Amino acid sequence: MWDASPHVTVPQAMICRSDIARAASRLSGHIRHTPVLISDGETFGLAEPVVLKLEFLQHAGSFKPRGAFNRLLAEPPPRAGVIAASGGNHGAAVAYAARALGIAAEIFVPESTPPAKVARIGGYGARVFQTGATYADALAASRTRMAETGAMEVHAYDHPAVLAGQGTVAREFEADAPGLTHVLVATGGGGLIGGIAAWYAGSVQVVSVEPEGCPTLRDALRAGRPVDAPVGGLAADSLGARQVGGLMFPIAQSYVADAVVVADAAIEAAQRLLWERFRVIVEPGGATALAALLSRRFVPPRGSRVGVVLCGANTDPAKGHLS
Amino acid sequence: MWDASPHVTVPQAMICRSDIARAASRLSGHIRHTPVLISDGETFGLAEPVVLKLEFLQHAGSFKPRGAFNRLLAEPPPRAGVIAASGGNHGAAVAYAARALGIAAEIFVPESTPPAKVARIGGYGARVFQTGATYADALAASRTRMAETGAMEVHAYDHPAVLAGQGTVAREFEADAPGLTHVLVATGGGGLIGGIAAWYAGSVQVVSVEPEGCPTLRDALRAGRPVDAPVGGLAADSLGARQVGGLMFPIAQSYVADAVVVADAAIEAAQRLLWERFRVIVEPGGATALAALLSRRFVPPRGSRVGVVLCGANTDPAKGHLS
Repeated sequence: MWDASPHVTVPQAMICRSDIARAASRLSGHIRHTPVLISDGETFGLAEPVVLKLEFLQHAGSFKPRGAFNRLLAEPPPRAGVIAASGGNHGAAVAYAARALGIAAEIFVPESTPPAKVARIGGYGARVFQTGATYADALAASRTRMAETGAMEVHAYDHPAVLAGQGTVAREFEADAPGLTHVLVATGGGGLIGGIAAWYAGSVQVVSVEPEGCPTLRDALRAGRPVDAPVGGLAADSLGARQVGGLMFPIAQSYVADAVVVADAAIEAAQRLLWERFRVIVEPGGATALAALLSRRFVPPRGSRVGVVLCGANTDPAKGHLS
Repeated sequence: MWDASPHVTVPQAMICRSDIARAASRLSGHIRHTPVLISDGETFGLAEPVVLKLEFLQHAGSFKPRGAFNRLLAEPPPRAGVIAASGGNHGAAVAYAARALGIAAEIFVPESTPPAKVARIGGYGARVFQTGATYADALAASRTRMAETGAMEVHAYDHPAVLAGQGTVAREFEADAPGLTHVLVATGGGGLIGGIAAWYAGSVQVVSVEPEGCPTLRDALRAGRPVDAPVGGLAADSLGARQVGGLMFPIAQSYVADAVVVADAAIEAAQRLLWERFRVIVEPGGATALAALLSRRFVPPRGSRVGVVLCGANTDPAKGHLS
């Protein structure tokens, strides 16, 4: 029910399963249905199998094209094209989607964005601006520019079409791995976990995992509202939003079962294990959800069937810590 | 029908689908059912989607544990354990399977086996002997040793249980990607393609792909019998058998539709594309089948639905040619 009285904040509508189903229809032919791999649980110290959603196989190396395509297809941009701020993965996704749809794109990234990601964004034909220390600084710069050009903003997480697009990860995961009791997801600005939690809507325990260096959702859930969190550590380029999005927050309050944090060393250990046991390379943000399981920051109850989203791999495979 | 008259060579029985189905039952719980990824065809210059079988996600980083486990489970080894010669991947698989089953293992590899593979075999607890220039030399050394110890040989490809185990790749592929018209497979000694061709038995066009440096199956099919081929090039450590196996050869004559060769540069290009477009790292032998498609050494007829087996990833991810 909408309360239209002027002195009460009107709650923003949560996205729901039908928004996500509509997104999936729009995305057909534009994104990859990424497969799952069922692993024995022993590898993770568990009795039951663990199901890995191999979302790093997505176009542009992360889940982000789902939200980007859905945003661009739901609301055709003006002639000035689109503009986005990003730690890197969202920028690559917007650049990729814009090129596929014949739309001009400008992408703002902070100085912390790794060279490999900057190069990839340019490689997809977007104009890249690297400015400011963090994602939030790049976002501010993108908005100044947007006021000049009239381009349409593609927010990295805080837009209903972006959330619904990311939610298609859960729609596929549910179809390919029915019967999961828990799904572990890395949280930055919260677009991915917001979409996933909206899809499962309490039918599965969705667990947020963040690096100790940028615990945005844990801090927000404790405070009862999105609050500024530190932005640092190994995965800051993909998970380093200063706050979770306003749109995802009520979804998280309703449907995120737990929000845990992990040390950078645990993220590196998860990266090493993924190469050693699965020949999979992911970036730190892509290994963060798994790190909670390996470091026992999240211990599933006996009999649980745990799913883990491996959400991105935009890293340099030559990084020494992988070998 | 067996012909027992002494002056006629008794044909060795081909393995068949029921051998492979039995292998699949034995392997349950020991190997991973590896997923497929459906890619748009455009990435490969084709109109129809291409289905990639992600077999490099298998235990020990290649398809080889399927054959190794099936051999060890079909015929329990003596107290002296097992012995195997290998370019590296089979050795890692035998070591992995032997450890899982509590069996002692000795592995012979040639000097060309990369350090990463030697270390991996030792890491699984096997005793490693590195000797001779090629796989064939290591095989000869392993047989001398076998005569001393009484260990059971686990041949890398020329044994019915090994062929049937590798054939389970096709059983999964058929279940997960019905309706393929062609399946591209890299050939070394021929265990993998022998098992796959035996499963499909002509219902799908199975295409062999070999590096120009070690064209064992192409040369054998031309000669009408297994013949010595050169052993060299980028993928020699995984595909560098001197001859294809005697057991796979009649299967190939009946059920391998074509045998093409690719240049090392095409293999490297396939490795680069797999990282660039899919964030997948494979070894040269694991990219060889795909190289035939990319280099147009194999051009599928219009309307084909092509499957490609990505069969191994035991490489150093820091290799410069991937970035």
